[in-house]
Amino acid sequence: MVTVVVVENIHLLVIVTLFSVLQNAFFATKVEREGKVQNTKTSAFKRVACANRNCMDSYPTFLAVMWCAGLCLNQAPAAFSGLIYLVARQKYFVGYMGQTSQSTPGYMFGKRVLFFLFLMCIVGILNFLLMRYIGNDYKETVEMITNAASALLLIP
Amino acid sequence: MVTVVVVENIHLLVIVTLFSVLQNAFFATKVEREGKVQNTKTSAFKRVACANRNCMDSYPTFLAVMWCAGLCLNQAPAAFSGLIYLVARQKYFVGYMGQTSQSTPGYMFGKRVLFFLFLMCIVGILNFLLMRYIGNDYKETVEMITNAASALLLIP
Amino acid sequence: MVTVVVVENIHLLVIVTLFSVLQNAFFATKVEREGKVQNTKTSAFKRVACANRNCMDSYPTFLAVMWCAGLCLNQAPAAFSGLIYLVARQKYFVGYMGQTSQSTPGYMFGKRVLFFLFLMCIVGILNFLLMRYIGNDYKETVEMITNAASALLLIP
Repeated sequence: MVTVVVVENIHLLVIVTLFSVLQNAFFATKVEREGKVQNTKTSAFKRVACANRNCMDSYPTFLAVMWCAGLCLNQAPAAFSGLIYLVARQKYFVGYMGQTSQSTPGYMFGKRVLFFLFLMCIVGILNFLLMRYIGNDYKETVEMITNAASALLLIP
Repeated sequence: MVTVVVVENIHLLVIVTLFSVLQNAFFATKVEREGKVQNTKTSAFKRVACANRNCMDSYPTFLAVMWCAGLCLNQAPAAFSGLIYLVARQKYFVGYMGQTSQSTPGYMFGKRVLFFLFLMCIVGILNFLLMRYIGNDYKETVEMITNAASALLLIP
Repeated sequence: MVTVVVVENIHLLVIVTLFSVLQNAFFATKVEREGKVQNTKTSAFKRVACANRNCMDSYPTFLAVMWCAGLCLNQAPAAFSGLIYLVARQKYFVGYMGQTSQSTPGYMFGKRVLFFLFLMCIVGILNFLLMRYIGNDYKETVEMITNAASALLLIP
């Protein structure tokens, strides 16, 4: 049965995607509530809307990189990195909503996680090309290394 | 032949995605035409641009949820819900462009459809996990129920 | 081994996606640097931010169309068209950042490439439906034609 095989290979990615959707819904609710309570010209509303926009801008990039990394190499470290990205996003959003006195966080966030996922994609593609044209298969080794490396992302 | 099997499982999702792309193109054309006819400072242009932005903001979320629901459970109800979401989006966009006197619709739309698709994902993942670790397969039953439930979305 | 078969069918698409992610990172870096150097009220920052936003708005649409075209028909012309789209986007972004005297490019870009990818999806889906319900398989012919047609996109 094909479908089961497919779901077997992506179920962790799907779960992380669902978490990210929940988080998107949380952000959207925040924006809507802030927009109702106050005038849309106040700085509080602008800050929340801006944080939401920055998060949404990078959302397709995140999804694309995570799914590519999961499909090309291994879903477990990709999904784990995805979770860490979601945590970083949450911190970014909450920090952005904070006091104005506090310097607003930069435009970007989660760069390290995205970079790691990007690296996973490249390694996966290189491994596939090597296997196809030369015949070596480093997949087992590479998967072990990425599994270990993804734990390093936890270091702040 | 693998490709045929893959397309077999996703062709309805692809068709709905194509419809959504057409709709995106329609929205973008509206924004561009409004931007050409009038000054970009007028409220009409701002309204159209804002409606377009809100639609685009939730577009990746919609795609992710629809595809996950279609892959994990069954493509037919997922594609049908996707179509209903597109109709809701069209109504939202047209309503947003309407008179200023008319209270603008909220920031969000199609919440019910997205929630239903989200639920489908969760049921699909739970079913997969149950089948893998316990051995039951409720897929047939669940698919029948979701097929019936997706018709309920038509109730306004 | 299922995973290898899957990667076999999508590796070109993944590579183009990685290029687009790199480009996104480039755009985001430009916006961030411009925001740091200057006040966020200057027109230079506004132009860069606007160009970035327009690019990000159409990004999910582009990804969806490219992947659908690659999955339904053939990945080689889809990936090639994707590359051309990335080049068009780069030119659009750089042109947007240029002098104010120069008339800013329109709201949309890469319409021709997106239209071509959209056509590929439709042809792929039609071919699948024909094959399923009537029994003809024009896939070989169609793939040859699209491979040739994608070269036509290079004509400016």
